[in-house]
Amino acid sequence: MRRGTNLPAVGTFNQTVVLDVIRRTPEGISRADLATATGLSSQTLSNVSRRLLDDGLIEEAGTYIQGRGKPPTLLRLIPTSRFAVGVHLDPAVVTYVLLDLGGEVVAHSRSVTPPPADPGAVVDGMAEAIDALLAESGVDRDAVLGIGIASPGPIDAERGLVLDPPLLEGWRDVPLRDALAAATGLPVLLEKDVNAAAVAELWVGDEQLRDFAFFYLGTGIGIGLVLDREVLRGSTGNAGEGGTLVVRREGLPRVRRSEQLGHLATPQYLVEQAVDEGVVQAQDASFDALLALARAHDEGALRVLHRAGGFIGSSLVSLVNLLDVDEIVFGGPYWRRIEPFVFDVIRAEVAGSPDRVTHHEVRLAPAAAGEDVAAIGAASLVLDATLSPRPSSLLISG
Amino acid sequence: MRRGTNLPAVGTFNQTVVLDVIRRTPEGISRADLATATGLSSQTLSNVSRRLLDDGLIEEAGTYIQGRGKPPTLLRLIPTSRFAVGVHLDPAVVTYVLLDLGGEVVAHSRSVTPPPADPGAVVDGMAEAIDALLAESGVDRDAVLGIGIASPGPIDAERGLVLDPPLLEGWRDVPLRDALAAATGLPVLLEKDVNAAAVAELWVGDEQLRDFAFFYLGTGIGIGLVLDREVLRGSTGNAGEGGTLVVRREGLPRVRRSEQLGHLATPQYLVEQAVDEGVVQAQDASFDALLALARAHDEGALRVLHRAGGFIGSSLVSLVNLLDVDEIVFGGPYWRRIEPFVFDVIRAEVAGSPDRVTHHEVRLAPAAAGEDVAAIGAASLVLDATLSPRPSSLLISG
Repeated sequence: MRRGTNLPAVGTFNQTVVLDVIRRTPEGISRADLATATGLSSQTLSNVSRRLLDDGLIEEAGTYIQGRGKPPTLLRLIPTSRFAVGVHLDPAVVTYVLLDLGGEVVAHSRSVTPPPADPGAVVDGMAEAIDALLAESGVDRDAVLGIGIASPGPIDAERGLVLDPPLLEGWRDVPLRDALAAATGLPVLLEKDVNAAAVAELWVGDEQLRDFAFFYLGTGIGIGLVLDREVLRGSTGNAGEGGTLVVRREGLPRVRRSEQLGHLATPQYLVEQAVDEGVVQAQDASFDALLALARAHDEGALRVLHRAGGFIGSSLVSLVNLLDVDEIVFGGPYWRRIEPFVFDVIRAEVAGSPDRVTHHEVRLAPAAAGEDVAAIGAASLVLDATLSPRPSSLLISG
Repeated sequence: MRRGTNLPAVGTFNQTVVLDVIRRTPEGISRADLATATGLSSQTLSNVSRRLLDDGLIEEAGTYIQGRGKPPTLLRLIPTSRFAVGVHLDPAVVTYVLLDLGGEVVAHSRSVTPPPADPGAVVDGMAEAIDALLAESGVDRDAVLGIGIASPGPIDAERGLVLDPPLLEGWRDVPLRDALAAATGLPVLLEKDVNAAAVAELWVGDEQLRDFAFFYLGTGIGIGLVLDREVLRGSTGNAGEGGTLVVRREGLPRVRRSEQLGHLATPQYLVEQAVDEGVVQAQDASFDALLALARAHDEGALRVLHRAGGFIGSSLVSLVNLLDVDEIVFGGPYWRRIEPFVFDVIRAEVAGSPDRVTHHEVRLAPAAAGEDVAAIGAASLVLDATLSPRPSSLLISG
């Protein structure tokens, strides 16, 4: 059903627009500059900023001299007025971060991912870790807007379940969202890891970024898509699965079990390839060992990593052709370690592949957040859900 | 820069929302039912419908009895109040349609695609064909909102150029949009063929469709994406290129020049495969001959077509994983002819592939428009640009 819009919806939308502009101007901004930035009238701005001041989200931050007349008052975000918790559930480790409204990480911690046999214990462990994080940072629980969880897919976004991620052995239909909400008394959001990471880029990355793909290298490979600053979640919240893209096997010395990107370019399989090709001995094989060899200019290790860069690059060429993205951001837990050995190869492939349909520049950039990107993204989700302006929120709800 | 919204923007948006609801209720709709459907107040609806009546887009269409009291007046679209022309430039044939505001094809014609050596002659030919179409149908030029052109990609959407489509030999940087506008005196929009076809589905297809992929089988293969009833055009208007997706070659008896979907499953290459495999003799080889053999249950012809269905299906599985779409619409100039031989194979692959990450149902459906879908889509573009409600249009322009 098509819905129109009305004044209350417009008021809420304008409030988030104004807050967003203030948030991105840490030194403070005058009401006149806000009017220029948002196109809103001074009367509307006056009402909106009154509400934000009353809610304690912003403060008046002194004045500055500008020509003659009364110097304008600046409005400035109070970054510590609200917080959000981010949890990244990875097959090996759970990462926790506490993010303030300004996008700064105030505290973080890690713990080993518990065995899933007892989901109750998993949730209790998370709740305890979150309590410890808040206690350590001295943040008032009332100032915490909520908790975001980044999980490997597939998830059931509607029911808040972690379904059966192939790399999270033994997990099956775990009601993580509601159980953690019950255990902590805080609202909880559940998101696929790659899409949480893309949200992090929106909150802590370059504010000019509007449309981009996010290449996520974790235990698996994700490719998220952000359009007009909204993450494409898909019909069930499971968009972003990049691991099943098929790539040409060119250069692989023997037939592997699949031609899927996820089976050719993730850390576990790179180590397998290195063993197969005699680059490392099976008993010493690890991703760190492979990277150490590459740093020592070992030809075999570089060959394995460069080839992975080629696989990643050619799958991104398909993506550029299909979706005509002109910006790709790279991140995830393993990205920074592999970046020195693959980024140039990926760049060359995307720029020069004969398979490209258009030839305009595609900008490639590492993500602003590092290893903790998915946890930061999970916390950003909460800020984003509460505080981001979205034209779609203007529509009168059915 | 973030932009707020204001009353003039809201007024225009609400007008398109109301027109859209009226358009989709051919029998007419009362102001009370419009209020229910749109959530707008009766005062707002009264103003909006006054403007639509003044513009001659709708009419009051009598009353109906409903309980006691004054019977409500119905508002109804005047389908013949506005028209749009659609042109589909295909490597072999140019198709023209005249569409009314209700989405009905009022007139259509075809001509052989002229050689591109003289772009001026191409444009003159198009202008003449459009004049003939209007004359034949007796439609007043003033009632024509504009012309849409659907072209193979790549295009330069910003400058209105047809760049160098691989299947349109000899075309290079042809300024089709502006030249046709100059020749006809009408506004012209240029769109990639697959994306125009997706717009057709929005205008003449099921109105419940909000998010879907459009699989387009023309001389090449396109895969368009529609999100919340807006076509994803990408950064340069070239999204939708499906031909360079890589698929596994399973079942192909000899190595072909590529593993790209566009080189394995389009009509020209299916005919090549049939010749290679001795299904048809080279001198009799044509797509129609291959389909005729398949209709006669020829095993070899069915093998070639079923295999193509498998290639298409497995590339759609990658797409479902990546974008989590739950609806795929199939169309394009060659779709209806190939459909009986590939649709079940595609359906089985999408439903049962071990590569699927989630297992929710993905609905597959043929497009509402037939062979002329791209031309109808091109005309729909004009209606869509003029008359579709978009939340993004609510933002105050910079």
